[in-house]
Amino acid sequence: MERTCLAIILAAGESTRMKSSMSKVLHPVAGRPMVAHVVDALASASISDVALVVGRDAETVSAAASTGEVEVASFLQKERLGTGHAVLAAREAIAKGYDDILVVFGDTPLVTGAPLKAARDGLAKGNDVVVIGFRTADPTGYGRLIVEGGALIAIREHKDASEEERRIAYCNGGLMAINGRKALDLLDRIGNANVKGEYYLTDLVEIVRSVGGRAIAVEAPKDELTGCNTRAELAYIERLWQQRRRHELMLAGVSMIAPETVFLSWDTELAQDVLVEPNVVFGPGVRVESGAIIHAFSHLEGAHVRAGATVGPFARLRPGAELGPKSKVGNFCEVKKAEIGAGAKVNHLTYIGDAFVGAGSNIGAGTITCNYDGVNKHITHIGENAFVGSNSSLVAPVAIGDGALVASGSVITADVPADAVAFGRARQEIKPGRARILRERYEAEKAAKKKAKAAE
Amino acid sequence: MERTCLAIILAAGESTRMKSSMSKVLHPVAGRPMVAHVVDALASASISDVALVVGRDAETVSAAASTGEVEVASFLQKERLGTGHAVLAAREAIAKGYDDILVVFGDTPLVTGAPLKAARDGLAKGNDVVVIGFRTADPTGYGRLIVEGGALIAIREHKDASEEERRIAYCNGGLMAINGRKALDLLDRIGNANVKGEYYLTDLVEIVRSVGGRAIAVEAPKDELTGCNTRAELAYIERLWQQRRRHELMLAGVSMIAPETVFLSWDTELAQDVLVEPNVVFGPGVRVESGAIIHAFSHLEGAHVRAGATVGPFARLRPGAELGPKSKVGNFCEVKKAEIGAGAKVNHLTYIGDAFVGAGSNIGAGTITCNYDGVNKHITHIGENAFVGSNSSLVAPVAIGDGALVASGSVITADVPADAVAFGRARQEIKPGRARILRERYEAEKAAKKKAKAAE
Amino acid sequence: MERTCLAIILAAGESTRMKSSMSKVLHPVAGRPMVAHVVDALASASISDVALVVGRDAETVSAAASTGEVEVASFLQKERLGTGHAVLAAREAIAKGYDDILVVFGDTPLVTGAPLKAARDGLAKGNDVVVIGFRTADPTGYGRLIVEGGALIAIREHKDASEEERRIAYCNGGLMAINGRKALDLLDRIGNANVKGEYYLTDLVEIVRSVGGRAIAVEAPKDELTGCNTRAELAYIERLWQQRRRHELMLAGVSMIAPETVFLSWDTELAQDVLVEPNVVFGPGVRVESGAIIHAFSHLEGAHVRAGATVGPFARLRPGAELGPKSKVGNFCEVKKAEIGAGAKVNHLTYIGDAFVGAGSNIGAGTITCNYDGVNKHITHIGENAFVGSNSSLVAPVAIGDGALVASGSVITADVPADAVAFGRARQEIKPGRARILRERYEAEKAAKKKAKAAE
Repeated sequence: MERTCLAIILAAGESTRMKSSMSKVLHPVAGRPMVAHVVDALASASISDVALVVGRDAETVSAAASTGEVEVASFLQKERLGTGHAVLAAREAIAKGYDDILVVFGDTPLVTGAPLKAARDGLAKGNDVVVIGFRTADPTGYGRLIVEGGALIAIREHKDASEEERRIAYCNGGLMAINGRKALDLLDRIGNANVKGEYYLTDLVEIVRSVGGRAIAVEAPKDELTGCNTRAELAYIERLWQQRRRHELMLAGVSMIAPETVFLSWDTELAQDVLVEPNVVFGPGVRVESGAIIHAFSHLEGAHVRAGATVGPFARLRPGAELGPKSKVGNFCEVKKAEIGAGAKVNHLTYIGDAFVGAGSNIGAGTITCNYDGVNKHITHIGENAFVGSNSSLVAPVAIGDGALVASGSVITADVPADAVAFGRARQEIKPGRARILRERYEAEKAAKKKAKAAE
Repeated sequence: MERTCLAIILAAGESTRMKSSMSKVLHPVAGRPMVAHVVDALASASISDVALVVGRDAETVSAAASTGEVEVASFLQKERLGTGHAVLAAREAIAKGYDDILVVFGDTPLVTGAPLKAARDGLAKGNDVVVIGFRTADPTGYGRLIVEGGALIAIREHKDASEEERRIAYCNGGLMAINGRKALDLLDRIGNANVKGEYYLTDLVEIVRSVGGRAIAVEAPKDELTGCNTRAELAYIERLWQQRRRHELMLAGVSMIAPETVFLSWDTELAQDVLVEPNVVFGPGVRVESGAIIHAFSHLEGAHVRAGATVGPFARLRPGAELGPKSKVGNFCEVKKAEIGAGAKVNHLTYIGDAFVGAGSNIGAGTITCNYDGVNKHITHIGENAFVGSNSSLVAPVAIGDGALVASGSVITADVPADAVAFGRARQEIKPGRARILRERYEAEKAAKKKAKAAE
Repeated sequence: MERTCLAIILAAGESTRMKSSMSKVLHPVAGRPMVAHVVDALASASISDVALVVGRDAETVSAAASTGEVEVASFLQKERLGTGHAVLAAREAIAKGYDDILVVFGDTPLVTGAPLKAARDGLAKGNDVVVIGFRTADPTGYGRLIVEGGALIAIREHKDASEEERRIAYCNGGLMAINGRKALDLLDRIGNANVKGEYYLTDLVEIVRSVGGRAIAVEAPKDELTGCNTRAELAYIERLWQQRRRHELMLAGVSMIAPETVFLSWDTELAQDVLVEPNVVFGPGVRVESGAIIHAFSHLEGAHVRAGATVGPFARLRPGAELGPKSKVGNFCEVKKAEIGAGAKVNHLTYIGDAFVGAGSNIGAGTITCNYDGVNKHITHIGENAFVGSNSSLVAPVAIGDGALVASGSVITADVPADAVAFGRARQEIKPGRARILRERYEAEKAAKKKAKAAE
């Protein structure tokens, strides 16, 4: 039978070193709050019950953790008296009786399911406490894991460690699994007879041994356990996340000329044979299909780019942009809530919003769909194989029929039937020799201004 | 007399780990297929006869290798039975009789002429096989070069190496020069009596010794021998290429504020005292003359920027853009197949395509040359010292004379004589108090929509 | 009583390896000439008298060093005979009599006040010469600091050093403090009896000992002493500067998703809780207030962004851009010398120059303020809660009243009263079926062209 598990996420920190108006676990990594990444890792380890210990920004943190994949119950930590005390804020949930209790932190968004599973496996093998540790070339400052004969004897804080112990490279990562049947008893034994008068979860290692139980350590890559105390550390975590994900995508057949300049979101989907040029930012909700090219300097969010389409350089796709196969959105173009049909082209300096562009249509440079009247948004519908001349304004609601042609520089306020030509521009007038006269007048004005200024 | 040389490029790999719809040697580095870089290196070492061993995408690979600098004959490798077998696909070429045979790989685009020359020098000195090696701090996994008394005794695969041999940091880079007069005889002696049943080129070292010949190794920088098996390795190679070229350019007097954000093509030419700001992408075919400034977020391809001109930020120069001395192309501007005269300004939100802009002219913000009627492209010709008012549409074919002035917001469909003013815009009408009425109506519509939605 | 101090900045180098048309000390780091950074460091160490030794580009260098914070007197070095000779170009200033003389270099812009203060402290404690040194893992090539019993015995050039001395990791950083009362006497004792026949400042260490004085060394971080000889080194210095400043800002509560892609100027001010997305360039003179978001691909210079405003992606703020609280400047928008009122929106493809946009107004996509007539600039004034329809041209000087509405695609040349609607566009005409006919004609033209070409 499968073992039951409750994960307790500690997310109540004050995060003062973040110098932030919000709790640190809300700060995003790859466009997703840190705490939601932790919930994702739990879900990937098939853990479905979560107790979230919250403090600052309690409601927002609870909402951020409720990703829908697991059941999250929130518990308010009223006083801040150490990790041992924080875990007990979820006493009610622990008391329900689980095989495994897993304690994780809301600010370690890089953790994956693997070490969590390893820690639970440790419990399943009869250990009562399993500490997740990591190895590092420079352990200075970390608590060392003192392992003897396979058992974890103690976690020694750096300041308390002997010279010999300080040479130990195996360190405490903070995350811990606890025998769920004994958890409350063990946690209640943690005392606060120390300098700071706090309750330390790490005391469990020695406590469990004192009652005849057994603790072990399991190892995780250091990166996965990276915690976040400052915005510089937040940036470092983002960097590690991005590197990991870019690498996965490249191995799966995505080309990136300069991966270090491509910024992905947690849910970015790029198919095999997609090419991403330098300097591309993917906001949340983007899916790009095979053979599409995302040129340099593009920004995509909530967009779907179908096979063989090309985007950019300098394109912005906003939520609801649906690019058809082999369509093209080019430089200085913005597409929002709009479908661009197969093979259609929106090449230059154009805004397409709340619109439908039919297959094979060509939208000239500088075209604007005037979708907003200051209060309501309206739809522009362009048929197939239509041609909208450059610098046109399409005042929505309006429809351009299949094969229709809009003359350059037109303002279109009424529907254009299929195969019709629409003009909406003034007739040109010429004033011969007038430019020279105007220029002289302007120069005189300039001279007068200068003179006036000098006279001040 | 100069020694003759045939270079054999092995480019028949399946490249499955690239997860790509094309052969890996076609993947570009600095905008040029990998295999073409290898051909460039051969050319720089004065090697003019090349036998290209192809498999997948044979025709495209042959075309990519035919850069025009060397004579390339292609040979199809039908079965994949190891490097020794691959080289013999070019049997016919080898049989023509060369002094030197050089075996290189289509997926090592960073190789330069220097180690190739060194390997040939080794042959000239009487050696029969010259292996190109490299030194690395972590040789794990590489074949070790066993050198004794100056002679290369063997190439020992990592798995077969003794503890002592594993400490050798000198590794096999794969590239090899072979005495051309003995090459066929030596190659034919390679057997396949091994676990995989393949023919290994590296066996040549022991074979040549067994027939009384001599092998040596010459050293190349590790980077030059970097091969490509995944898209992550492709990105790494691109990174090394870019670092090498940026460094060369900086030492030659080009300023880059953040070189790691400047992406060059294989043929980018930047003169002394050019300043390149952060985040600039150079596609193929760009030449920038002295004193020009390429501002941040610019994208250039097939463009020529003359002395003292400034580009960007946020400018895109496409093929055929010719910027005159001290001209200026500014933010959100695209220039394609167009000449911008000396000192002319195209500063904001403008599309100039298939056009000529005379010296000293000023193109207002938002101007569009309407060069396409949906079928044909037409030319816009703007004279010297003309002024095109903002947001104008110039419907090509059309000409604006010297010193002419186009009123802002005009649609220009007919030629404008020199020194004339052209208007092409409607007269303004005012509806007093109407905005308030409209806004009330829009708000009512909005409310009605909301109500309808709620009623659904 | 406070000790007096004269700082001598050596800035006369020919900088040939920079391959530059200007002196290297003029090359900017973080948008400010290198030499000005050095002056800033002096000012931060409360040094107010500066003697600047200039050669190439003497006047420009003097101007660049005159940041207004300290008194700078320039001295021309006519011959280049070594650092000892260069310092004496400022003989006249030294002769005025100071307690401390500090010798620094115009090409070490990363130096901070700390080591300068430490060097002066060394003089205050009775030493006659204080050399600023640094420690490095690879000292090859540097002059080693030979320290015995706390005293600096000699500076040994790498080539002259013994095996044992070469193992010393403590190196000469070049900067030096000298007892001002003895400085001229000591400096005059420097000889040129060496291979190059130059006067070396480093000789002072042995000279001062020979006359019964005492030299010591004080340590500074290696980075602070990084000098600049090539553009590659310039880029390296820029990188270190940027890393330092980004880190400071993050610790102060600024979020940067990818700090390595954010480029700051020497005077950039970002408040707590500002979010800077990837790929943002800050030119000089930018101040961003709390809670503002600078989206990806933005370029700001001389701009003030108030609390809660959002900029970009793809926005350019030029000097004089004043963004009100919670205002928004969006993609492909340029704002120059313009105030954007609280909550006002300039969202897409717009140029706002020499303008005032009232609070709550909405500027439609593609709007252009036509501020220039080819000679003079004119003002556009838009009231509060106005709505300017998309693709409009506002021909300045012009005013749009509070609550007014400009119809999409209008050219506005006359003032629009409050609450009025203004139209400035042509009526639309439809030519039914005409598109098909035109297309056929265009296709025929295309075919004719092709035929003509083929016939050539």
